[in-house]
Amino acid sequence: MANELTSRATDYAQWYNELILKGGLADYSAVRGCMVIKPYGYTLWENMRDVLDKMFKDTGHVNAYFPLFVPKSFLEKEEGHAEGFAKECAVVTHYRLKTDPNNKGKLMVDPDAKLEEELIVRPTSEAIIWNAYKDWIQSYRDLPLLINQWANVVRWEMRTRLFLRTAEFLWQEGHTAHATAEEAIEEAEKMLHVYGDFVENYMALPVIKGIKTPNERFAGALETYCIEALMQDGKALQAGTSHFLGQNFAKAFDVKYLTKENKQEFVWATSWGVSTRLIGALVMAHSDDQGLVIPPRIAPLQVVIVPIYKGPEQKALVDEKVNAIVAGLKANGISVKYDDSENTRPGWKFAEYELKGVPVRIAIGQKDIENGVVEVARRDTKEKQSVPAADLIEHVKFLMTDIQQNLYNRALAYRDSHITEVNSWEEFKQVLNEKGGFIAAHWDGTPETEDKIKEESKATIRCIPLNNQPEEGVCVFSGKPSKQRVLFAMAY
Amino acid sequence: MANELTSRATDYAQWYNELILKGGLADYSAVRGCMVIKPYGYTLWENMRDVLDKMFKDTGHVNAYFPLFVPKSFLEKEEGHAEGFAKECAVVTHYRLKTDPNNKGKLMVDPDAKLEEELIVRPTSEAIIWNAYKDWIQSYRDLPLLINQWANVVRWEMRTRLFLRTAEFLWQEGHTAHATAEEAIEEAEKMLHVYGDFVENYMALPVIKGIKTPNERFAGALETYCIEALMQDGKALQAGTSHFLGQNFAKAFDVKYLTKENKQEFVWATSWGVSTRLIGALVMAHSDDQGLVIPPRIAPLQVVIVPIYKGPEQKALVDEKVNAIVAGLKANGISVKYDDSENTRPGWKFAEYELKGVPVRIAIGQKDIENGVVEVARRDTKEKQSVPAADLIEHVKFLMTDIQQNLYNRALAYRDSHITEVNSWEEFKQVLNEKGGFIAAHWDGTPETEDKIKEESKATIRCIPLNNQPEEGVCVFSGKPSKQRVLFAMAY
Repeated sequence: MANELTSRATDYAQWYNELILKGGLADYSAVRGCMVIKPYGYTLWENMRDVLDKMFKDTGHVNAYFPLFVPKSFLEKEEGHAEGFAKECAVVTHYRLKTDPNNKGKLMVDPDAKLEEELIVRPTSEAIIWNAYKDWIQSYRDLPLLINQWANVVRWEMRTRLFLRTAEFLWQEGHTAHATAEEAIEEAEKMLHVYGDFVENYMALPVIKGIKTPNERFAGALETYCIEALMQDGKALQAGTSHFLGQNFAKAFDVKYLTKENKQEFVWATSWGVSTRLIGALVMAHSDDQGLVIPPRIAPLQVVIVPIYKGPEQKALVDEKVNAIVAGLKANGISVKYDDSENTRPGWKFAEYELKGVPVRIAIGQKDIENGVVEVARRDTKEKQSVPAADLIEHVKFLMTDIQQNLYNRALAYRDSHITEVNSWEEFKQVLNEKGGFIAAHWDGTPETEDKIKEESKATIRCIPLNNQPEEGVCVFSGKPSKQRVLFAMAY
Repeated sequence: MANELTSRATDYAQWYNELILKGGLADYSAVRGCMVIKPYGYTLWENMRDVLDKMFKDTGHVNAYFPLFVPKSFLEKEEGHAEGFAKECAVVTHYRLKTDPNNKGKLMVDPDAKLEEELIVRPTSEAIIWNAYKDWIQSYRDLPLLINQWANVVRWEMRTRLFLRTAEFLWQEGHTAHATAEEAIEEAEKMLHVYGDFVENYMALPVIKGIKTPNERFAGALETYCIEALMQDGKALQAGTSHFLGQNFAKAFDVKYLTKENKQEFVWATSWGVSTRLIGALVMAHSDDQGLVIPPRIAPLQVVIVPIYKGPEQKALVDEKVNAIVAGLKANGISVKYDDSENTRPGWKFAEYELKGVPVRIAIGQKDIENGVVEVARRDTKEKQSVPAADLIEHVKFLMTDIQQNLYNRALAYRDSHITEVNSWEEFKQVLNEKGGFIAAHWDGTPETEDKIKEESKATIRCIPLNNQPEEGVCVFSGKPSKQRVLFAMAY
């Protein structure tokens, strides 16, 4: 079969790339590091976006849209922020092309159209947004300001991978302003939980919620909260982050408000975002050697029906049955496609929809109709079952829930069996190399040790879990005292 | 009142700008020519986008996402296209900043990070999309390819106006590929009608459907279809365009398909788009000297309720009534806000929601409750009416339809009374200067005359209406023979 994939065991990275391409999620583009999100992948993103957008609105946020370009001088205003993003910026320097006088039919940059100040294609929007907030916030009555933006951003990464790390990606970025530090911290934590709920309940992917070490914080943040998920190859993936920015941006852009007590105070800030990277996480967490496995709640297509027939008479009979099933499923809010295209055989279609990760496949033929049954196959376990036609709709509804839950349980069992406590540097390296997953180890709390561990093992501290229990111990690397274990892993 | 607007009669352009700013739709940004779309304006855009997106999907289209950047060499491939867009391109030349060694705390473009080939921030996506289609289309089975993209685009305009002409704007761009010219033309016309339906039935704005003269065609198109609307100042506004691109892009990017007869043929193309410019059209078409007037079907907020009370006891009584009304309206899918904020008085709120164009305002106080009525004000006519509480929900439902229809009728009456047939150049200039609107005049069909008319009067040919009747006559400008009238106007 042309669609055959490299197996995960053979080459996980290759399997992933093939899956993205053959599954029709995305394609390489002619622009270095940028991808094309194909219709099937984009529908998946739309489904994820719609759920998240509703969650944001239900928690009091509204959407707005800020400019794509950030003047260079704005990026400079918050020092840590500037350092964090300056090295990966796409820079607009000119605003016009002209025909090349020495090269017929070719265009060249018009040297007369040089910008006075260079514009950066936003790598994130704190700077441009806080510059606007300066005009929008005067008094405590204007707070909290709870705004989200859906947008494209550009970070000039040197090594790119489809969805996981691309020069341009799609995301949402929340930017909120508050009267007090407490409120801002509460907001940052609230959004972390919104992300956690989304990833667990819709993407069927268990996450560990925690905070980043200072080394791994967002450029310009006082605290970075994160959700970390585990992929099937034992590597961790940061699935979303939420930042408490303190007053850094308020001070950089001079955003003050008049308190109830008539005093001028700087505003407190958060920002939080998830991106199309989540699609990479989804693929790596659930899919198998036959193709994508997509949780029903966000699947671009939940059910596919394939007819089995010989000749137009049988086809007509099958069509009639299928039309009723399609209507029944749609009435229950289940998306369904009847694939009766004649170019390909049923076996080819089965493999194709398996590759695309459609949660439920229904096959129906003359014999099934005679026996009053249909054949139902679920993508997650690949089980096939003959289901009485009268029970079909209820059975599919059950499968939507059951597959969702099963994928979550499977991912959770894998994740939980891949959190390993280690108590020595030898053990650390051994588990990292042989088993992978999260390593719960004592760390002395210094960035120096963190750097050295990264240097020697390539593992990073993924997070200090929010629900961490205090425990006395000694750092696996330095032998110095430690008050808690933190989670290390190799990571995407 | 702080919100008082310049009247339309005093200064239409000033009125428009103030309305956008004070109405909370958008704000200027620090980036030249780029605006911030504020939450109220963005919600309006979301409502418009959601309706259009459903219309596109109902006509068989799917969404995808293509890169923000277009390599310079791609833009060169279609000559007309290149000429049309080269002069207004934002050009990315570098991919990194570095700290300025001579200027502490400042960043500079890193000269070592110059791109080999400059990247253009997409002004439209034909080039990048057709380069992808080359790999996606092999056989007639891959056609038609019906793809839409929601995206931001950048055209470096010298004179910008909020929503009407901004350097960056949001839009959708459909890009379809077909096996035959007939199919592509049918698609281009179909989407023109989708746009027409949307603008007329949701934006309550009548449009004239027509084709552009060759002079006014999209750069790279064989035929440009358009919908033209009339603003209250008598100027026309192009509200959407749909292009039959022939095989120009297929040839430029070498996109061929294998026909059923086993022959290699170039593919036929269309593209079509509407943008945030529609918000400018909406504002200019319906609003008045008191503020925005927004048609109920796309209004960010359809109903606002303002309580009138003295003291907490009355407030509690009003709250109870209002809660029931809010529940009743929401159950009927009507968006509603209960504004019981204590910072401002009812009169201030009335003016504020008038400014924001909320279609229906309900006021309710102690006396109303005693009398079993509520006060209902409609934004379009400013009529106030005392409505029995028991009939309220039905009455508001009626108003949603009636206001929508009334706005359309009003705009239609204005538009129809501003299409003037003229038969001499004197008359042409007089109507243009004194009355405005569309001028139906004979034209000899040459681009030279079209250019001269534009030069002398600033009027352009808006379109040749699709339903035009043949009529023998002589060109108002050149006196040469003409077979039909075309529509001229001053335009945005």
